[in-house]
Amino acid sequence: MNPIPKPYDAKQHAAVAPAGVTLNDPFWSPYTDLVQNVVIPYQYEAIHDRAPGAEPSGAVQNFRIAAGQAEGEYVGWVFQDSDLAKWLEAVGYSLQIRRDADLERRADELIDLIEAAQHPDGYLNTYFTIKEPGKRWTDLTDCHELYCAGHMIEAAVAYYEATGKDKLLNVMKRMIEHVETVFGTGEGQIRGYDGHQEIELALVKLYHLTKEERYLKLAAFFINERGQEPNFIRREWEQRGRRSHFRPHGSSDIDTSYYQANKPVREQNVAVGHAVRAVYMYTAMADLARLTEDAELETACRALWNNITRTQMYVTGGIGSTHHGEAFTFDYDLPNDTIYAETCASIGLIFFAQRMLLLEPKSEYADVMERALYNNVLGSMAQDGKHYFYVNPLEVWPQACSCNPGKHHVKSERQAWFGCACCPPNVARLLTSLNRYVYTRRGDTLYANLYIGSELSAELGGTSVTVKQQAELPWSGAVRFEIAAEQKSRFALALRVPNWSPNMTVSINGESLKFSLSELQDGYLLLERDWNDGDVVEVSLTIQTTLLYADTRVRADVHKAAIQRGPLVYCAESADNGESILTLRLSQNAIFSERPANDLPGGAIAVETEAFRSVTPATDNEPDVLYRTQPPVLEPAKLTAVPYYLWGNRGQGEMTVWMNTL
Amino acid sequence: MNPIPKPYDAKQHAAVAPAGVTLNDPFWSPYTDLVQNVVIPYQYEAIHDRAPGAEPSGAVQNFRIAAGQAEGEYVGWVFQDSDLAKWLEAVGYSLQIRRDADLERRADELIDLIEAAQHPDGYLNTYFTIKEPGKRWTDLTDCHELYCAGHMIEAAVAYYEATGKDKLLNVMKRMIEHVETVFGTGEGQIRGYDGHQEIELALVKLYHLTKEERYLKLAAFFINERGQEPNFIRREWEQRGRRSHFRPHGSSDIDTSYYQANKPVREQNVAVGHAVRAVYMYTAMADLARLTEDAELETACRALWNNITRTQMYVTGGIGSTHHGEAFTFDYDLPNDTIYAETCASIGLIFFAQRMLLLEPKSEYADVMERALYNNVLGSMAQDGKHYFYVNPLEVWPQACSCNPGKHHVKSERQAWFGCACCPPNVARLLTSLNRYVYTRRGDTLYANLYIGSELSAELGGTSVTVKQQAELPWSGAVRFEIAAEQKSRFALALRVPNWSPNMTVSINGESLKFSLSELQDGYLLLERDWNDGDVVEVSLTIQTTLLYADTRVRADVHKAAIQRGPLVYCAESADNGESILTLRLSQNAIFSERPANDLPGGAIAVETEAFRSVTPATDNEPDVLYRTQPPVLEPAKLTAVPYYLWGNRGQGEMTVWMNTL
Repeated sequence: MNPIPKPYDAKQHAAVAPAGVTLNDPFWSPYTDLVQNVVIPYQYEAIHDRAPGAEPSGAVQNFRIAAGQAEGEYVGWVFQDSDLAKWLEAVGYSLQIRRDADLERRADELIDLIEAAQHPDGYLNTYFTIKEPGKRWTDLTDCHELYCAGHMIEAAVAYYEATGKDKLLNVMKRMIEHVETVFGTGEGQIRGYDGHQEIELALVKLYHLTKEERYLKLAAFFINERGQEPNFIRREWEQRGRRSHFRPHGSSDIDTSYYQANKPVREQNVAVGHAVRAVYMYTAMADLARLTEDAELETACRALWNNITRTQMYVTGGIGSTHHGEAFTFDYDLPNDTIYAETCASIGLIFFAQRMLLLEPKSEYADVMERALYNNVLGSMAQDGKHYFYVNPLEVWPQACSCNPGKHHVKSERQAWFGCACCPPNVARLLTSLNRYVYTRRGDTLYANLYIGSELSAELGGTSVTVKQQAELPWSGAVRFEIAAEQKSRFALALRVPNWSPNMTVSINGESLKFSLSELQDGYLLLERDWNDGDVVEVSLTIQTTLLYADTRVRADVHKAAIQRGPLVYCAESADNGESILTLRLSQNAIFSERPANDLPGGAIAVETEAFRSVTPATDNEPDVLYRTQPPVLEPAKLTAVPYYLWGNRGQGEMTVWMNTL
Repeated sequence: MNPIPKPYDAKQHAAVAPAGVTLNDPFWSPYTDLVQNVVIPYQYEAIHDRAPGAEPSGAVQNFRIAAGQAEGEYVGWVFQDSDLAKWLEAVGYSLQIRRDADLERRADELIDLIEAAQHPDGYLNTYFTIKEPGKRWTDLTDCHELYCAGHMIEAAVAYYEATGKDKLLNVMKRMIEHVETVFGTGEGQIRGYDGHQEIELALVKLYHLTKEERYLKLAAFFINERGQEPNFIRREWEQRGRRSHFRPHGSSDIDTSYYQANKPVREQNVAVGHAVRAVYMYTAMADLARLTEDAELETACRALWNNITRTQMYVTGGIGSTHHGEAFTFDYDLPNDTIYAETCASIGLIFFAQRMLLLEPKSEYADVMERALYNNVLGSMAQDGKHYFYVNPLEVWPQACSCNPGKHHVKSERQAWFGCACCPPNVARLLTSLNRYVYTRRGDTLYANLYIGSELSAELGGTSVTVKQQAELPWSGAVRFEIAAEQKSRFALALRVPNWSPNMTVSINGESLKFSLSELQDGYLLLERDWNDGDVVEVSLTIQTTLLYADTRVRADVHKAAIQRGPLVYCAESADNGESILTLRLSQNAIFSERPANDLPGGAIAVETEAFRSVTPATDNEPDVLYRTQPPVLEPAKLTAVPYYLWGNRGQGEMTVWMNTL
């Protein structure tokens, strides 16, 4: 039931996501800069309740009150502490990119504050400190204590890695020492887990940093207890008189699948419940499968991965088909307009994909990672860094968002900071740590998973190597690798052939490489050789505008096509195509032309094609009849599509990713 | 603001829905029989808490407790009294069709009980009598006191018309006397109205029966006060500390448009809010517009009618696009799968259509009445009379109904009696009073609105006339009228040309009548002549299978077609077409063949055509990829469609009314 994690094994650890990568990319670096220059400062103001027009966050003020440095009431959600944690984590990554004394001073001050808010026994949580002292660990289902601790651990690790400063790290080690006394199978201990998974993957990070097995063991405990009978979530709910934080008036039942606690994790093979919780958990499961060589966990991870990506994932990499519980629904149920596809869930899917890449190098994991990154996640943030989508729809009719309550959760324009501010800081921490997603490494094979301009420095083939990557994605498919090595080095550079590139040409030092697709190993072309200083690999990926079709079991997309160009999914907007964009109809043989999208930021390319529009003919004599025997007329109409990640930048309007085909 | 109704004017009353009609129709009479033989007895058991498998209703027991004849707690919804009222109303109509001593005895006993539950001051409502004595008239927004009184008035009128017994009528007259003291513009009176409209149309019925103007005046008071400022609904909510019966914990705001109280009724031109409340109100408005010659009200009625039927009505005659508030949403928002389209709302639309026909004889009102009757309403009841749809979807995926919470309200099979049992008794009272919807009469013109076998007896052209109608609808378009008259009689028989019949041929006494469609008067062919005893009019309507197309502004139906045959809308079901019925694709030139639907009840006709099915090709080598560049293959496939009103009779399966076209 609770296998003790195997001891640390260097061989296992051969698979890593190298951190020694510096991003330098014409497409992505501006986003990282935006996070550093705008998002982090803006979020700093927000957590200090100074962001104009935003609801007071209370995140910092709560710590002041908990530390006895201020008086007042607790403000915000029960998980408000995590906002400060996510900000600190992003700061940690940001400082790894570029030291900034002023930013570091601000972070240090906040870390001092966090330390001051910690109880002598190690406990740290401002909600219970301020609002419900004495009620610690009584509502794990809803109250996010371990979740907040998890985020603070991630912050501590990132900040330590950036600065070498261990104050926050020690705070969190003390917290975990405390947690170890509270949770476990021993007498008087809680045999339970947090309603919102997060600490599990954070403990793995702490283990990676410290190499202390206790953290891996605690992560495994939480994972393995989950869903066991008697069910902890249900028992806790009954003990609280069938009430909880979010259901103060009680509930007649509790759905344990919302928490992925409906069955032991090893028996789970279908993604259910709250999507963010799910992918955070699968991430930790994949970590533990790798680090503890747990074949059962690995099998469960594969089944869950397949279930998501082959039946429950939107073409934008979004997951979560319903806002009710921000959750998965069931296979092939992917409504485009009542969708949830929360930004955080796609970020979690990227985490999961990365851990699966570490488990086994298969390009399909990177394909999904890239899909979620370039579309759902990137599209969630406005170009000003201050406005965000929480829900990322594939079809929007602004009037329906206002006037049909089933779509109130879908917004047609990015919103300033949210009451529940989970997504923006999550985007910030992902973008500042994007360097960690470019490569994975297994022994002396370096897998290029993302084609993003960057510089990796590592020991490869026994010598110090720098791999400099230049890429023109997503607009063009030209990629260039330059090797700098102190001496000749034998290692493999594994080039991912993206699922959107039907062909790839490669040359080494100007000499074209002949290979057939059958030589690929799980979607990668392995270039294993003795590399010399100055070697250049030039890769050309095919970026062309193509139509994608969903499996016909996806009811919402049947008879429709989506436009994709390289890693980018495209969409049609009213700004280019007028009202009633769903009346447009595409030919399956549509030929696309390309042009600069001058009214959109960032050198984006728009695509155009001759399409058709279904029009109800005006009838002078008849009343405005809703249903007629006369079919609508198909009129020629130009269709313009723009990258999905840029939708909603030109005022309110309709948008659709999927378009009817003739 | 509150125009005093004009005095009774015989000229105005020339427009009536004659009650002296006996139904005798091969299609409809079995349904009336079903209501008489099964539904009314079953509902009698249900309101006595004896229906097997159904939740206890409490409806009768509440009256016993209120009358001091039993002890116990109030059971059921705050409007539970209306269940008994609707049963009695259906009994009233049923006894008008066929006297039944045993049924009458049961009704008399219940009427005695109702009388016993009435307070000395005339007040009648078991909820406030039992549960909140002293709180009368303090929560009109939610508590349905006048609504229940309205239904009891309708019952009293129907029962008096059937039996001449006036006990319940007198009970309700005393109740109204009491209501008149409580409501009004005088000192200490409540200047308000019920949250759920119903008493207004009931008071008009009471006026029709008694000719006492006070009832019309009270109806006009409620209608005219609605939506005036200061807003009564809002004021009451504030007075109750922003709480109400259905919001015991309070609410931050109250949406007065849910109650159609957001603006004065004369200023309303868009249907908003709870659909049943809306159409019940519009019905009373149309009544008052006619009876008080109120041009402003008439204009508002026309605008609301046009808004519903030209932008917010499903092809089945369903209304209400969202289950949130069981409400209208906005123009052209007609989602097929998250729909509400409550049975009661379509019944209310039929009421409204009938009153509009009385205001002005235009066939479009009858077209809508027929559409709602033959499709949404008829489809709501199972052939056993004991199972009902509350929500009448146009697209069903059973797994989504279970597993996507946004569709939990949609059921794929008719359910036994509901906790909120409004729809089944509403169907019962409509079907037993269907005879009143066949004709309207304006002076000596008799408008045949529905082609349903029946016998009308009336004074026409100064003499006693019987018009016997025989019809073979909906399966064939042959209709025959036979005139029996004591002496030669000059009157006009106005034949509606249904919107589904492109042609109509008419012969009188075997002689074919030549006419062009331009001679039609508002959709009716007027046969004005001296009629002799034995005259026969034979009408042939064109019943053929055709495709209907929605206005392309209806996003949900764009590029799709629905199949209609005569007044019946058809649908495709899995039982005939296998899984994934949305993969089917129709040609706009589809040629349909017809065959008996032997696995469906009632001599139904199924239609078939050669269509196509979109199929994702199986790929042996590839993983089960969700999105592909290879388009699905169009394979020839037979498509079978069956009448919508019979859907869901062959176990759980998919269903769709709208199908993609090539």
